[in-house]
Amino acid sequence: MTRWPLVFLAISSLRAQEIDRVAVLNDLAELLAIPNVARNLPDMERNAGAIIKMYARRGVTLRKLDAAGGPPALYGEIQTPGAKRTLLLYAHYDGQPVVASQWRHAGPFEPILLDANGEKLSWPGPGATLGEEWRIQARSASDDKAPIIAFLAALDSGLRPRANLKFLFDGEEEAGSPHMRGILERNRTLLKADGMIFCDGPINQSRRPLIAFGARGNTSLALTVYGPARELHSGHYGNFAPNPALALAHLLASMKDQDGRVRIAGFYDDVVPFNEAERKAIAAAPPVEDQLKREFAIGASESPGKRIDEANGLPAFNIQGITSGGTGAEARNVVPATATASIGIRLVKGMDPRKTSAQVVEHIRRQGYFIVEGREPTPAERLAHPKIAQVRTARDGTRAVRVPLDSPFASAVVRAVESVHGEVVKQPTMGGTLPIDAFEDVLAVPIVIVPIANHDNNQHSHNENLRLKNLWDGIATLSAIMTME
Amino acid sequence: MTRWPLVFLAISSLRAQEIDRVAVLNDLAELLAIPNVARNLPDMERNAGAIIKMYARRGVTLRKLDAAGGPPALYGEIQTPGAKRTLLLYAHYDGQPVVASQWRHAGPFEPILLDANGEKLSWPGPGATLGEEWRIQARSASDDKAPIIAFLAALDSGLRPRANLKFLFDGEEEAGSPHMRGILERNRTLLKADGMIFCDGPINQSRRPLIAFGARGNTSLALTVYGPARELHSGHYGNFAPNPALALAHLLASMKDQDGRVRIAGFYDDVVPFNEAERKAIAAAPPVEDQLKREFAIGASESPGKRIDEANGLPAFNIQGITSGGTGAEARNVVPATATASIGIRLVKGMDPRKTSAQVVEHIRRQGYFIVEGREPTPAERLAHPKIAQVRTARDGTRAVRVPLDSPFASAVVRAVESVHGEVVKQPTMGGTLPIDAFEDVLAVPIVIVPIANHDNNQHSHNENLRLKNLWDGIATLSAIMTME
Repeated sequence: MTRWPLVFLAISSLRAQEIDRVAVLNDLAELLAIPNVARNLPDMERNAGAIIKMYARRGVTLRKLDAAGGPPALYGEIQTPGAKRTLLLYAHYDGQPVVASQWRHAGPFEPILLDANGEKLSWPGPGATLGEEWRIQARSASDDKAPIIAFLAALDSGLRPRANLKFLFDGEEEAGSPHMRGILERNRTLLKADGMIFCDGPINQSRRPLIAFGARGNTSLALTVYGPARELHSGHYGNFAPNPALALAHLLASMKDQDGRVRIAGFYDDVVPFNEAERKAIAAAPPVEDQLKREFAIGASESPGKRIDEANGLPAFNIQGITSGGTGAEARNVVPATATASIGIRLVKGMDPRKTSAQVVEHIRRQGYFIVEGREPTPAERLAHPKIAQVRTARDGTRAVRVPLDSPFASAVVRAVESVHGEVVKQPTMGGTLPIDAFEDVLAVPIVIVPIANHDNNQHSHNENLRLKNLWDGIATLSAIMTME
Repeated sequence: MTRWPLVFLAISSLRAQEIDRVAVLNDLAELLAIPNVARNLPDMERNAGAIIKMYARRGVTLRKLDAAGGPPALYGEIQTPGAKRTLLLYAHYDGQPVVASQWRHAGPFEPILLDANGEKLSWPGPGATLGEEWRIQARSASDDKAPIIAFLAALDSGLRPRANLKFLFDGEEEAGSPHMRGILERNRTLLKADGMIFCDGPINQSRRPLIAFGARGNTSLALTVYGPARELHSGHYGNFAPNPALALAHLLASMKDQDGRVRIAGFYDDVVPFNEAERKAIAAAPPVEDQLKREFAIGASESPGKRIDEANGLPAFNIQGITSGGTGAEARNVVPATATASIGIRLVKGMDPRKTSAQVVEHIRRQGYFIVEGREPTPAERLAHPKIAQVRTARDGTRAVRVPLDSPFASAVVRAVESVHGEVVKQPTMGGTLPIDAFEDVLAVPIVIVPIANHDNNQHSHNENLRLKNLWDGIATLSAIMTME
């Protein structure tokens, strides 16, 4: 394993203060004005072209890595003479789809500046003083064009990298990066690095900088159980036709108890528990649980007494939805024909998505169900089996990735960021999922997640925004990382 | 109790054969051509006017009973000198709503004649021979204008009633007869009778005539359980925010076990079991269970080994629907905010709808839920109670009605119908619900249900139809009843 130096020179933060903030904002606005929904390839090519030009002006040549039909990934590098290590810096330039009518003041691709009260400001001229609580609003202002511009601003500040830097800008992260594994496999040598920084996501709710050392994986499962072949009159056939909604209720209840414990055999077997450093980091993070309970209006969490980051150390079994017959204005006096549940499972380090899916399927079988996979049962099958379920599992799923936070690379990143910001919040794993298992698999590289955006950034929704202080702090954060030895 | 005579003269069936079948069909078509969705009052007035004219031509004066804003009920009587008893004959002239585009060959209010293959026939001229398997298609052809015309045809055949006959034609049965209790209370003396025939519904699937001696009641309940105040990201908050779909699954599973037994305390306490005559009638009815299992593609019924009519002797607890989050194309990676179930309960003789509703609510409370009735919980209530449920119960519900089939009136009706058709299928109770508890409550009259329509009549749906043989048999059935002593 590569050893990361214990000593670190925090010169980058000084330099970051010298940047021309209005110029940075203008660069960001220029990029945000180009629509970037991943499925619109001509738009994505325009984004790629703009980013290539911006980096070329700083002497960094980006090139397109073919994505076999998807938007290209962009790759470029800064070779540092005498460097002992190589750092891979990741961000993505695509954004979530938009509903233009929902946006305030301007469309999603018309970047505007707002004051702390959400009032629209006129665009600042050269040398203007910018409020730190102001926000720039546009799709991808925070997720995830901000780091792409922050890297540029860091370069403009004259920082001198000490490691080799490799940039990789994904063009379809919000679409699940379906072509990334192929890109990595075709460019294994090109992308080889000793550590990877995944720049995405928000910092802590307390506004303190945050570093995450992993993300949960996921898999999903659609489950349908069957009653009569068609909806039946509940008077004539109630007590005769089996009710699939009741059957599904029993089946789901058998999977997870009321104390939040999953009852599927083997479900927790492969979980790698947090080590002592991780447990300490969780205990040291600002407590947000009571605030969240109030915000969500819940009388108790599903993991009472546990810190939320501690709860995220276990896999989560979540019913995303149930559909059967009708309720409310759509309620009818019928025995429904089917009942369907959508189940999402978050995985932690050690778990294999396919193995977990297979455990769920086996659990259903053990409840007495005849299972058909990914198709409707035939009438003959339905007649032959009193309990019958269709299961449709996610093809692959995503593995959890987690770097021990006392490992050399993780420690080095912490030291770099803390050299400019003081103590940061250390999250052993995010609860959510990032498409980073492919990087670990193909590049065998340790990955640390360094977000810069504010948590209240309306990520994925309308009025997405980036708080300006987060941008300046983020530039300092990334400058520190770009000058790691 | 009025005693019904054991001896019965079966002269009516002979007379029924003398009717002019084409003329009957023309009368029925004339009535079916008038749209009859209960909420359209002008249409309903046109129906009432047409029926009044038709009955007037046979010397029966019908008058409108005010329905306090709903379509009028029509009332008329035939006083029979020397009659010892009075019979109340009920049918309804409104029909279910229609979706005109779904109908084949013609609109729902353009009556047409179809052959046994569903091909449209030209309308028959006077004296034409009609196929017994032909059908007349239109909304309410079977449900429930057919009996209104069948009474007329019986009168045309020259039958001589021996009891006093009272006709009552409801104008909003398909809307749940919301004004009927008021009509009965305002016309208690006018409608007084010794027995009531409720003409509605289909005969047995075997095409054998059927007499039913009761109907189950019903009540309903909408139930919502709460998770977080808004949908949450299932990665960030899965294991922290309680999942309402899982809570609902546990709650529903606690209400009824996988063997179909309801686990709500007291649920079966007031059930009046079938007596020996009823059990014998069920055993003697044509077995339809295997046929139904094939038709419904179910491997087992919810009451294995039981006749369906026997199963209908118990109350039914039916989940009509569940809605929470999304499934299929609408599945999202969220912890849903709420989960809602619509529950329908069929009641049997002895049960009180409000008491049953209260038992369900008490059951929910015993599972640890704080209950709000018919309103959203406040944020403070949600914070104070880890388990919180909104319950909305039906205001009244409908009681089950069931006349013992060895009671004098029931026996007399059986003898009358069997005098023309031979042995009939005797159903102690229909599984479905009819709005007849008000008649029992207000008029204290024994009620027997005498359907005439074919079971495959597309009741309540598009292409509703009446098989012609059912019309001729039905005229014979009702003639026999109209000449009961």
